[in-house]
Amino acid sequence: MKLHWSTRSPFARKVMVAAYELGLADRITCQRTLVGMSAPNAELMRENPLSRIPTLVLDDGAVLTDSLLICEYLQLLAGGNLLFPAAADARIDVLRRHALASGLIEILVLRRNERDRPPERRSAAHLASYEAKTSATLDAFERAAPAFGPGAVDIGLVALGCALGYLDFRFGDAPWRPARPVLANWYETFAARPSMVATRHIDA
Amino acid sequence: MKLHWSTRSPFARKVMVAAYELGLADRITCQRTLVGMSAPNAELMRENPLSRIPTLVLDDGAVLTDSLLICEYLQLLAGGNLLFPAAADARIDVLRRHALASGLIEILVLRRNERDRPPERRSAAHLASYEAKTSATLDAFERAAPAFGPGAVDIGLVALGCALGYLDFRFGDAPWRPARPVLANWYETFAARPSMVATRHIDA
Repeated sequence: MKLHWSTRSPFARKVMVAAYELGLADRITCQRTLVGMSAPNAELMRENPLSRIPTLVLDDGAVLTDSLLICEYLQLLAGGNLLFPAAADARIDVLRRHALASGLIEILVLRRNERDRPPERRSAAHLASYEAKTSATLDAFERAAPAFGPGAVDIGLVALGCALGYLDFRFGDAPWRPARPVLANWYETFAARPSMVATRHIDA
Repeated sequence: MKLHWSTRSPFARKVMVAAYELGLADRITCQRTLVGMSAPNAELMRENPLSRIPTLVLDDGAVLTDSLLICEYLQLLAGGNLLFPAAADARIDVLRRHALASGLIEILVLRRNERDRPPERRSAAHLASYEAKTSATLDAFERAAPAFGPGAVDIGLVALGCALGYLDFRFGDAPWRPARPVLANWYETFAARPSMVATRHIDA
């Protein structure tokens, strides 16, 4: 399988964390593919017209264009229920957590794009909005974190780990930890998992 | 159940189309909730810190913040496999289609937001990028459309119907049909489904 990927993409990282957790990382060939909101990648678009990464191309040419779908597909390949529980109630709970963490990543990506626009085309209202949503979502996870099992992993926690990793990577000056000690403590342990260590963001 | 919703949101429409298809529409109380990328809704944020719609609030207070997750939850409530097939291969195929259609909606939302910024803060590069991705994704669906079964419905087709409905709603001057006759013909039939007719966008 070929994964269009970069060391800077939080959604591509989520896929590779899942692959490591499922024992499938060595079956995926990562191809560095650069995309930007204002710069479509014509070569990638032959396989994914949305011009987004991660994009997984199977050996038969079928293309999967969404990180959650790719993770679900990888679990199917691996067998078992490590990241997506089988029982309906547990599955919905994990996907609720995933939705909040994935939404946080989307906001952080938008926030970084807005911040990096030329000053004259930057919108202070958008930046303030993204900052307020980031802060409120981190607060929600601080309230939820006491229920995270020690050593637990699921697709929601993988997404949350990637959200916090991306927050540190792109907004390293944002002091999110002091007001959220439970979440900070959970993240310190989660970020030490081999799957997280092997996939750290690199600005290259 | 309470759904934070508006007549202008393509993702909220997707949820309500799914609810009509599953026979659950009358169990959902739609609450008009206005959000904007640069205007967080403080009241909504008490239930969903991402300040996005659709947001489904269950009777026990649990909150679902993603349209695909809400649709999967609704199918669980309804029973059966109308929108998400049970067999793994068929499920992945439907979710692949959904991912492409949902990505198209996301691009259209970004494109409309960019277009409606004050001229001095608008980015021509972003607009051109969104237009290229829109066009390429429509072309991909034109190639796929001959395989859509007549009268078929699944979560991928629901998302595609909502993407095309939103395209007409917000970009009514975009002549997408002439170069994509198979897709245009499929959409004409799909848009006549009672679930689509009951959920038409209204600019109010």
